[in-house]
Amino acid sequence: MKVYGDSISGNCLKVKYVAGHLGLPYEWIETSVLKGETRTAEFLAINPAGQVPFVDFGEGRILAQSNAIMRYLARGSDLIPDDPWLAAKMDEWLFWEQYSHEPAVAVLRFKIKFQRVPLSDIDPILIKKGNAVLDLMERHLTENEWMVGDRVSLADVALKAYSQFAEDANLSLESRPNIRRWLSGIGKVLMS
Amino acid sequence: MKVYGDSISGNCLKVKYVAGHLGLPYEWIETSVLKGETRTAEFLAINPAGQVPFVDFGEGRILAQSNAIMRYLARGSDLIPDDPWLAAKMDEWLFWEQYSHEPAVAVLRFKIKFQRVPLSDIDPILIKKGNAVLDLMERHLTENEWMVGDRVSLADVALKAYSQFAEDANLSLESRPNIRRWLSGIGKVLMS
Repeated sequence: MKVYGDSISGNCLKVKYVAGHLGLPYEWIETSVLKGETRTAEFLAINPAGQVPFVDFGEGRILAQSNAIMRYLARGSDLIPDDPWLAAKMDEWLFWEQYSHEPAVAVLRFKIKFQRVPLSDIDPILIKKGNAVLDLMERHLTENEWMVGDRVSLADVALKAYSQFAEDANLSLESRPNIRRWLSGIGKVLMS
Repeated sequence: MKVYGDSISGNCLKVKYVAGHLGLPYEWIETSVLKGETRTAEFLAINPAGQVPFVDFGEGRILAQSNAIMRYLARGSDLIPDDPWLAAKMDEWLFWEQYSHEPAVAVLRFKIKFQRVPLSDIDPILIKKGNAVLDLMERHLTENEWMVGDRVSLADVALKAYSQFAEDANLSLESRPNIRRWLSGIGKVLMS
């Protein structure tokens, strides 16, 4: 399979983490968002949504949306709980990540680190949202080792994607020891 | 099960549509976003994310995120394709709906219809995004009867939720006949 991704994008790294952990062979096609490579006519012809990551499985089968890609690649693996209730709680976090976490933390990081927007020009509401989602995770991880159940699942991989870059978004990990402990734990599991 | 939902919210209607189609008994607890009922200490104690819909299955089992709830309720039913590839394409639309469609169409509708923000005060970028997601759907539905495969799936239910209210968001359905045809078709299947 061919993975079109931008190495600076947490959403794209999700695909790399899952494929790597499961030992799935793939070709990585570096596609830079900053250079406008997701907005060319050629790219839009393959993926009208104009987003990375997306995966080309051949024979016209292409799949976009990082969490949908992870869910497909990881089907039947230890990254998706067998128990339907735990799988539902995993899905809950996956949708929360895309609806609430990514639009705050990833967008802040993009503006501050890559677009170099001065902090004084950043919308305070976005900063408040970024802190709120990390606070919610910190509370959850104070009482739970992982986001769902007693092992690493796609919920952890999805939320690692941008939580690990929180400092780039001017959001503190120093004050959130449980997120730091959890990030370190996921890293070890994904490598094993 | 108890479904906490706001009847004016497309996200909440998704749960009603799926439970209704599958004949699952439930108690609906009307929870008004406009009246601030999702922001009370009592509500936040049950659901810290402060969002509806969420479902209480009893014994401490609560589930939020409309698409995660649908996916759980509909497991094993005709609303989720058996074929893993089609299920992946369904998931792709579910995540796209929450990341790209809902933040444009639902937010526009909320501002215009419920907050009564004058059209001249609406961010033109939001209107552009609203038209772009409907155009993408219209193109897809010109060549396909349903969003995925040859029958109604959760992808259709999720995208019906706010597409049906596009006119409330000042987005035209008049000029998008395939979306109109598709909406009518889903309505018939959900009733059957």
